[in-house]
Amino acid sequence: MNADSSKSENALIRRLRQTLSRTPADRPPRPGEEHAPRDFVDDMTAVHPPEPLLWTVDMLMDGVDFDSAHHRWYDIGRKAMAANLSDCAAMAAGPISALCAVALNNALSMQDALDLIRGAHECGLRFGCPVAGGDTNSWTAPTAISICIAARPEAGCHPVRRDGARPGDRVYVTGLLGGSILGRHMTFEPRIETALTINRRLDPHAMIDISDGLAIDLWHILEASGCAATLDAAELDAVIHPDAVRLGRQDGRSPREHALHDGEDFELIVVLPPSAAPGVSDPDLWPLGRIESGTGLHLREPDGRRRPIDRRGWEHFR
Amino acid sequence: MNADSSKSENALIRRLRQTLSRTPADRPPRPGEEHAPRDFVDDMTAVHPPEPLLWTVDMLMDGVDFDSAHHRWYDIGRKAMAANLSDCAAMAAGPISALCAVALNNALSMQDALDLIRGAHECGLRFGCPVAGGDTNSWTAPTAISICIAARPEAGCHPVRRDGARPGDRVYVTGLLGGSILGRHMTFEPRIETALTINRRLDPHAMIDISDGLAIDLWHILEASGCAATLDAAELDAVIHPDAVRLGRQDGRSPREHALHDGEDFELIVVLPPSAAPGVSDPDLWPLGRIESGTGLHLREPDGRRRPIDRRGWEHFR
Repeated sequence: MNADSSKSENALIRRLRQTLSRTPADRPPRPGEEHAPRDFVDDMTAVHPPEPLLWTVDMLMDGVDFDSAHHRWYDIGRKAMAANLSDCAAMAAGPISALCAVALNNALSMQDALDLIRGAHECGLRFGCPVAGGDTNSWTAPTAISICIAARPEAGCHPVRRDGARPGDRVYVTGLLGGSILGRHMTFEPRIETALTINRRLDPHAMIDISDGLAIDLWHILEASGCAATLDAAELDAVIHPDAVRLGRQDGRSPREHALHDGEDFELIVVLPPSAAPGVSDPDLWPLGRIESGTGLHLREPDGRRRPIDRRGWEHFR
Repeated sequence: MNADSSKSENALIRRLRQTLSRTPADRPPRPGEEHAPRDFVDDMTAVHPPEPLLWTVDMLMDGVDFDSAHHRWYDIGRKAMAANLSDCAAMAAGPISALCAVALNNALSMQDALDLIRGAHECGLRFGCPVAGGDTNSWTAPTAISICIAARPEAGCHPVRRDGARPGDRVYVTGLLGGSILGRHMTFEPRIETALTINRRLDPHAMIDISDGLAIDLWHILEASGCAATLDAAELDAVIHPDAVRLGRQDGRSPREHALHDGEDFELIVVLPPSAAPGVSDPDLWPLGRIESGTGLHLREPDGRRRPIDRRGWEHFR
């Protein structure tokens, strides 16, 4: 029997070393790198950034963020990487390298485990962010996967934080919202290129990715910035995804509800100064409303009525 | 009711922001850092390293690496950080900053969750490595905690890899081995200072921390370096921990067995050139044997008999 076809942690690591091509270890060492750790061999791995380095971590769990009874392990790995890349997009940081830690349910086969981590790696590679190392564990509980990414702003650009929104600024989103649970939560594209372009051209004051829902994630910007915002109902209606309409037909909630409060759209909320109106050559940005002084988030109907929008969305640990 | 005493992800993050003092965000920004992300606020966090940066991730799971029915959450968080710091020690890298991702079982209280992450943070702080951000999740499955650490070699020093052992080198360990399951696996000290001192003074050819067991972790060095080793039975007997003797009395296995194959000692295996004999002012290093050409790991008895040592220890994903 081929040792590499048997199931064990060391066999998995050997297979990963062979399978995950184009990690930083695959190129010749640069000057000063001769003593760098070897990916998938040593206790740590190296990343070669300019200062400052940004980094982030996200953990996805079976039964919460994905359902291994329905989703393929490759697609689950892809989502785990893409959700982390979305955090890079939120700050307009270009990803460099990733680590991947897994707690694999014991029932997974070697191929399942490889597919999971390969899904993450190959998604990362498309954005210049290979999986360069990690930690492989198994247990009787459902599978969890945690990915950590190092990233950097483009030369001459700053990362975009949550706390820069100012009264008079305009609120935009990068795509249609709501009903992602029907499938897009597994297949979304992280908005890295969009974010880098916006940061290069449009002087964004604040950004965040929509992981918990438009309303609550915009609340995060408002709270960090000490501002209020009012969304325009007609503009909101224009960014409702067809999935939000379909889902609304199933559960009786309004498409607007879904667009405001569903999680995992992984589009960006972008706050721009009034002077920075996006042009035809800029990324698609849908206007939603504006930042105001005070506190709170409101929706303005076409007839002028204003009603508060709940601070509600996906939240763990309840 | 005080909003911060209710249980929710946002409440937990707010409490962490207040509780985890002395993260990098607590000092005034250095020149060039004015635009850095704010810890526990933005989607990513910043680390300010020289090049190259080393990083590592480790995940610990309830029922596998700790038992929440018996261990306190603070001590569990401490172990999660210490196990990661031990990987830094293995490469003689000084830790800088950590991220912490958790999948919390829903039954945990707010205080449990804070204790868990505070245990990690306060252990890290003692080594200059605060928890600066992370990801908080909850689910119905047992709790998992994943910590990612960024680290750097000391100025003028290289990280110590696994692949530098050469025939004629001597094998040492930094402490007594075996029976850690009786308690030391929760309370061990990561050997950061010892490792940095060894790297500064003794030109180590290879190092690794003993997480899976002396035999299998030494095998990792031998395989990476393309060498064999023979351990001296009398020297091995001199590093048997009293816990290995106690455990042997309970389970009928020999103390040597426990010293060779028990996991989670978190001492270091250190391979030094013959010229670099440790002196009285150097860290305590117990000699164990020597590196040879060829392949395999053997034990030499006082009467000269040589027997192979199994390539066996803790391994996940079986």
